[in-house]
Amino acid sequence: MTLPTAEAEILVPFHDCDPLGIVWHGNYTRYFEVARCALLDRIAYNYTEMVESGYAWPVIDLHLRYVKAIRFNQRIVASATIEEWEHRLKIAYAIRDAASGERLARGHTIQVAVTLPDFQMQYASPDVLAHKLGISP
Amino acid sequence: MTLPTAEAEILVPFHDCDPLGIVWHGNYTRYFEVARCALLDRIAYNYTEMVESGYAWPVIDLHLRYVKAIRFNQRIVASATIEEWEHRLKIAYAIRDAASGERLARGHTIQVAVTLPDFQMQYASPDVLAHKLGISP
Amino acid sequence: MTLPTAEAEILVPFHDCDPLGIVWHGNYTRYFEVARCALLDRIAYNYTEMVESGYAWPVIDLHLRYVKAIRFNQRIVASATIEEWEHRLKIAYAIRDAASGERLARGHTIQVAVTLPDFQMQYASPDVLAHKLGISP
Amino acid sequence: MTLPTAEAEILVPFHDCDPLGIVWHGNYTRYFEVARCALLDRIAYNYTEMVESGYAWPVIDLHLRYVKAIRFNQRIVASATIEEWEHRLKIAYAIRDAASGERLARGHTIQVAVTLPDFQMQYASPDVLAHKLGISP
Repeated sequence: MTLPTAEAEILVPFHDCDPLGIVWHGNYTRYFEVARCALLDRIAYNYTEMVESGYAWPVIDLHLRYVKAIRFNQRIVASATIEEWEHRLKIAYAIRDAASGERLARGHTIQVAVTLPDFQMQYASPDVLAHKLGISP
Repeated sequence: MTLPTAEAEILVPFHDCDPLGIVWHGNYTRYFEVARCALLDRIAYNYTEMVESGYAWPVIDLHLRYVKAIRFNQRIVASATIEEWEHRLKIAYAIRDAASGERLARGHTIQVAVTLPDFQMQYASPDVLAHKLGISP
Repeated sequence: MTLPTAEAEILVPFHDCDPLGIVWHGNYTRYFEVARCALLDRIAYNYTEMVESGYAWPVIDLHLRYVKAIRFNQRIVASATIEEWEHRLKIAYAIRDAASGERLARGHTIQVAVTLPDFQMQYASPDVLAHKLGISP
Repeated sequence: MTLPTAEAEILVPFHDCDPLGIVWHGNYTRYFEVARCALLDRIAYNYTEMVESGYAWPVIDLHLRYVKAIRFNQRIVASATIEEWEHRLKIAYAIRDAASGERLARGHTIQVAVTLPDFQMQYASPDVLAHKLGISP
């Protein structure tokens, strides 16, 4: 089974750049988010559908590895791929230069399902995720 | 009657500064927000109490005048003062250097009440605002 | 003479939205910035070229009028048009829903030239701006 | 030898919170930054002094573990402690509730020195860091 992947092209905005003239490291989380939302849209299970299904999926772990500085007005591609889904939703990311394909950063996030509105953590992913992934429960 | 005012001291964070080494102009809205929340806390009508009262108060107008550039690690004071409340909530702001008192920016926001959850705009401020301001309706 | 205009399409990211489920008002400045940079790229006088020309152009005035709330994953179009250039650079903006064309916000920014690196304000726009706009000095 | 530590109290601003009513996970990097800058101020080697010393220290690795959701207007304390300094600058962080002391998040960043303005990575920390830490080279 191949797990879904998606990517998004981003033109780095001025307001993401710091006094060193490079993207401030915390703003890479925005590029991961854009790629993740493209991925979640692909399986029709983005934030709106998550809430409708009775769950939120807060991020419980984030790792980011910065390979090469990113600059203002650079065209980049952020990609997201599902790596685990049964007990938690682990997504891997890469950021590449759009022109050269050179890798600029990589990382992952881990999300777990919590019930709404009481935020009770679920130790296995609810069936809705497998359904959205097209996997027989 | 004197309308309430409040202020908050802020140490300008690195991530608010742009490649010119100054606070990016859009981030001043954050300093206004911090001052507004200090003001709304003072009258016990911040976002949580607003929602509990059945209303949200979206901003419908913003003006910002930039007087002097603000830099990383500068200590500033943002102040907020209610200027109008009967039909809409107009708040005036100033940002000053904490050490010298020099004015660095000024501006205003205008908010109007909308009912929750349907976001119907109210053309007069609901009684709860006058009550919070200690004004007899 | 027709002054230049440009626009950019934006898919509203999750991290721009606040607890009311709408774009936080301060984040509209990001959409204006994206449209402005598209405009400045069109005349080959974006931030990099500004610095190379010996000037920065800090924003000294911002006005924003919010017409209708913008929501997560909404596709919007931000446009920017130069309105004045001789003594200061005034740019007008509009944000519209990409599908319906309905106007969601409008506003302007005013920028003035300052010399680099000493930030001395210029009371007339330096010749480079007219040159970039294709106007004979 | 005890390596330096510092902490900063933060009142969670409205604009850091997402449609779930909790701090958006990417904004925790802001709280780490505030704590790191308090730490770097303590050893008089914050960004300004870094640049004056001929180096920048870009973040090359970030890890964040989210323990419990953080909400609007919650008073939190972010702390930063230097864990390694000889070849790279590793700082560990914790975020706690200011009232209860309960831990809400933890993580680390790793920074390496690069020369300015050419961004050449240094495989050992330059002497200035040991000097700032009060360690004999």
